[in-house]
Amino acid sequence: MGRRHIYRCPLRWSDMDAYGHVNNVVFLRYLEEARIDFMFRLAPGEGSASFQGGSVVARHEIDYLRPLVHRHEPVTIETWVTKINAAALTLSYEIKDEETVYVRASTVIVPYVLAEARPRRITPEERLFLAEYHEQAVAV
Amino acid sequence: MGRRHIYRCPLRWSDMDAYGHVNNVVFLRYLEEARIDFMFRLAPGEGSASFQGGSVVARHEIDYLRPLVHRHEPVTIETWVTKINAAALTLSYEIKDEETVYVRASTVIVPYVLAEARPRRITPEERLFLAEYHEQAVAV
Amino acid sequence: MGRRHIYRCPLRWSDMDAYGHVNNVVFLRYLEEARIDFMFRLAPGEGSASFQGGSVVARHEIDYLRPLVHRHEPVTIETWVTKINAAALTLSYEIKDEETVYVRASTVIVPYVLAEARPRRITPEERLFLAEYHEQAVAV
Amino acid sequence: MGRRHIYRCPLRWSDMDAYGHVNNVVFLRYLEEARIDFMFRLAPGEGSASFQGGSVVARHEIDYLRPLVHRHEPVTIETWVTKINAAALTLSYEIKDEETVYVRASTVIVPYVLAEARPRRITPEERLFLAEYHEQAVAV
Repeated sequence: MGRRHIYRCPLRWSDMDAYGHVNNVVFLRYLEEARIDFMFRLAPGEGSASFQGGSVVARHEIDYLRPLVHRHEPVTIETWVTKINAAALTLSYEIKDEETVYVRASTVIVPYVLAEARPRRITPEERLFLAEYHEQAVAV
Repeated sequence: MGRRHIYRCPLRWSDMDAYGHVNNVVFLRYLEEARIDFMFRLAPGEGSASFQGGSVVARHEIDYLRPLVHRHEPVTIETWVTKINAAALTLSYEIKDEETVYVRASTVIVPYVLAEARPRRITPEERLFLAEYHEQAVAV
Repeated sequence: MGRRHIYRCPLRWSDMDAYGHVNNVVFLRYLEEARIDFMFRLAPGEGSASFQGGSVVARHEIDYLRPLVHRHEPVTIETWVTKINAAALTLSYEIKDEETVYVRASTVIVPYVLAEARPRRITPEERLFLAEYHEQAVAV
Repeated sequence: MGRRHIYRCPLRWSDMDAYGHVNNVVFLRYLEEARIDFMFRLAPGEGSASFQGGSVVARHEIDYLRPLVHRHEPVTIETWVTKINAAALTLSYEIKDEETVYVRASTVIVPYVLAEARPRRITPEERLFLAEYHEQAVAV
């Protein structure tokens, strides 16, 4: 079983909507932050640097389990890899507290050559990096 | 085959991210606007008014097919109903132009009694309204 | 007295914050939309095209007069020019309805050469265009 | 000379616009976070708790001095009080790094009785709290 990347995501007061909860759309913003932290900070090397901007989101699935209200403490986002294909990978996430899971989600990401506007294959270096976080998918 | 609700969704320049495309998260904001337009405008009557605020998003699935760049013309969002359960319904959407489909998505919605913070069953009046837009799901 | 540029600005439900009003920050987003509409649509010619992206916001002043709640009708934003200097201009705005003024604001804009990251002078063509909308400043 | 409240404001990647800089509107979001941190965390007591939600923004002035690009380190926001009237106060801010000031701004805030939708006077307890952060205004 692989490692999980931990990101402590700060909330903003304006993440709440008129019902006084963090709006469902904003959770995808949180996932973006976790994903960027995963890809930028942990993959600063040669091969993997290509992910920086050089990837597009192809699909999201997201399940809302519990409402979340603004507070000053960040929420924890665990990110791991549930699928590695030739030219796509799937990340899975949980947005949680010690006691509560608020959201489960997954994102299909396609590595991309921005300059030529075309998808590309995952490199061996990237595969090695991703494998560390690879874990069987739980049903989302 | 059911009707489809048509919403002409205006873009904002700030919907674009640093890559110069409408950001993937923002498309869910567009879907929220289409959904509110569907539920608020078309369901202003007694029974269906309960949807106003009295519903929560339980799940989204969203597929990104083509990138979208800011322009002054709105995009078209078609919304229809692909499932009606006792206490949940599924909306499906396409975000499109005459020539291009940018996004396909679906949302599971649970009617809710806000005051008591509990889910509730779909009323017969709501079912009647939703049935008009009911259509077999296409694979998303 | 000069012309005023009229922009009909659509609201989004998510523009409201947890207090159920359009959030004060969001009004500056509305002004951005009005400004882009002013500069992009009305100034598509040679000289003025340089404003497209080729300008930076140097300062905002904004007064909040009345709260605004989400509704399906757009608000009206009137934009005009209150100052034209050698290398800066000031736009003034009102966000309003037929009956109510919600916001009065002004923005100092500096034309910019993006490629060289330096400010530049307003061209004679731009000055001509701006002069049409020039009006003595009202106290903001 | 008064104390300054220090808030370390995390950026989000999506705070950047299509020009690759933190968008001018987003800085007002940062100020909101600093203000809420100032008012909620530091004023949790009886009298001052009334500020929680019980205040409205009447005016912003904001000057943009330097562009800011997304990075993983927060920016520092210093907040202090530059005016205390009977029924209004002015906060001033700097958004900065050790080396650079990005933004200078000020906000006029009016204490408010939400339930009755009317402004109210600043209480003696609030005045005491605010006085600690009171400092002569610098020209903004």
